[in-house]
Amino acid sequence: MTDYFIGVDGGGTGCRAVVANARGEVLGHGTAGSANIVTDTKTALANVMKAIDVALKAAGLDASCHGRCHAVLGLAGGNVEGAGAPIEAGLPFAHGDVEFDGLIALQGALGDQDGAVAILGTGTSYIVRQNGHVHSVGGWGFPLSDLGSGARLGQSLLQECLLVHDNIRPGSPLTRETLAEFGNRPDNLVDFAWTAKPGDFGKYAPRIFQYADQGDPVAVRLLQQSAAHVSETLDHLIRQGVDRISLLGGMAPLYVKWLPEHQQRLLVAPLADALTGALQLAIKRYAQSPRATANEQKP
Amino acid sequence: MTDYFIGVDGGGTGCRAVVANARGEVLGHGTAGSANIVTDTKTALANVMKAIDVALKAAGLDASCHGRCHAVLGLAGGNVEGAGAPIEAGLPFAHGDVEFDGLIALQGALGDQDGAVAILGTGTSYIVRQNGHVHSVGGWGFPLSDLGSGARLGQSLLQECLLVHDNIRPGSPLTRETLAEFGNRPDNLVDFAWTAKPGDFGKYAPRIFQYADQGDPVAVRLLQQSAAHVSETLDHLIRQGVDRISLLGGMAPLYVKWLPEHQQRLLVAPLADALTGALQLAIKRYAQSPRATANEQKP
Repeated sequence: MTDYFIGVDGGGTGCRAVVANARGEVLGHGTAGSANIVTDTKTALANVMKAIDVALKAAGLDASCHGRCHAVLGLAGGNVEGAGAPIEAGLPFAHGDVEFDGLIALQGALGDQDGAVAILGTGTSYIVRQNGHVHSVGGWGFPLSDLGSGARLGQSLLQECLLVHDNIRPGSPLTRETLAEFGNRPDNLVDFAWTAKPGDFGKYAPRIFQYADQGDPVAVRLLQQSAAHVSETLDHLIRQGVDRISLLGGMAPLYVKWLPEHQQRLLVAPLADALTGALQLAIKRYAQSPRATANEQKP
Repeated sequence: MTDYFIGVDGGGTGCRAVVANARGEVLGHGTAGSANIVTDTKTALANVMKAIDVALKAAGLDASCHGRCHAVLGLAGGNVEGAGAPIEAGLPFAHGDVEFDGLIALQGALGDQDGAVAILGTGTSYIVRQNGHVHSVGGWGFPLSDLGSGARLGQSLLQECLLVHDNIRPGSPLTRETLAEFGNRPDNLVDFAWTAKPGDFGKYAPRIFQYADQGDPVAVRLLQQSAAHVSETLDHLIRQGVDRISLLGGMAPLYVKWLPEHQQRLLVAPLADALTGALQLAIKRYAQSPRATANEQKP
């Protein structure tokens, strides 16, 4: 009987599944809705199973193969203590491991190599593998962490707009455009900010890169400060021995040129995406190949 | 018939009222619950009237004198457009003006002189009088403003604790004590921060001053950054011609030594408190003295 290997990449915006054989040949893909395992375990499990069932169906398979399936699920929140257990208990497979999404991103980007990934999106987080051991750095969320993230960067622009409005700091085309969008009324910025989620602030990040490319002095300063936070963390990782870094996330390509030369030299393009990373882990852990299983240490 | 003059200082934590005669001789005081005119006009009006009635009773007066009373109420949120009107409409006095709390703080601290007050508490705001004209600077609230405030300072400590926990930055006795209070578990800081109100962050501010006095390097750095924000705004005001500054609020005495020498030289002790400032405005505006009314420009 053939064994099947399943990778899942899931989070707040949706989940994706892939089914493959032991050689990693992809047999089918599937997608489904969000899988927030911290706030709604039941829906998360239902959506994970839905994405997997779609992928199995695309592979010409059905539930009768579940007992020969080995799955690794990389889910946002999978590093929250105890959050993965109810999902793992609900999976009908021979193996079903819930991991945090950073681990599958790392596996996808670097394969089995040591190194680090820096996820630069609405939030920021860093996942490191050294001598096979994986740990994460930063990424504690918007209110106290995620320095250099799109959310913090966007927030810094709106904060700057108020300083400019009060004539405490000089404005620029970037602040004038942004203030104008709020009707040049500080109260409108303030109202927005009291209820804004990180993603709402993050929407202002791309324009900061865009204006900085045009030499806008405020954009350049905000980006230098933001990049300094990313760079400070990368230097910490480099001091620990990291010599291979992949930047991931929506801001990854934008940030490269704002990092110092010695860090740019360590950047490597990701080998594959997080979904592929999850599939790789499933095969490494559970395929009947001595080589594959011997190499891997479950973090 | 004698006229009476009333000052009120009100905000989220309570309101205080004072009744005096035209010479400013205090006849009675009263206090009552919170007066948040932005979120609950009805309760705010009820509490303002309660504080005034207590003050009138202490002065041996009752409602029959309302038609001979002239009141100025300095209320938090009184600068929000339209927020004061329902209160003014509900007051039974000959005159009843709602002003924002910064104005009465300015009047109390500086009397009729030009200058500025910097209110350094859970939030920060700056109120300036130049040639009799009053305007405010900053004070747009925690999410995008209030740089240098107790809330932002406390938040910066918790943020630093996470950087220390991740070994990105070196710790100190201050961060060790603070992390220990959260059981040395970043998740506990994160949970706290997602729901913390500005006042919750602000509770960590006093210990930063305390540790800085003992030379704690993290405390010193956080305070230098925070004081630089206050100092940047003060320099803006000084460039505008301000040459007399009173620091008010819970952190006022703590901040003095962290400001540059050229700013310390402009500091003056407040002449009186905000409640007295409200009373002064009532007398200046409505007492039948040509000198008093001619001097004042309602902002």
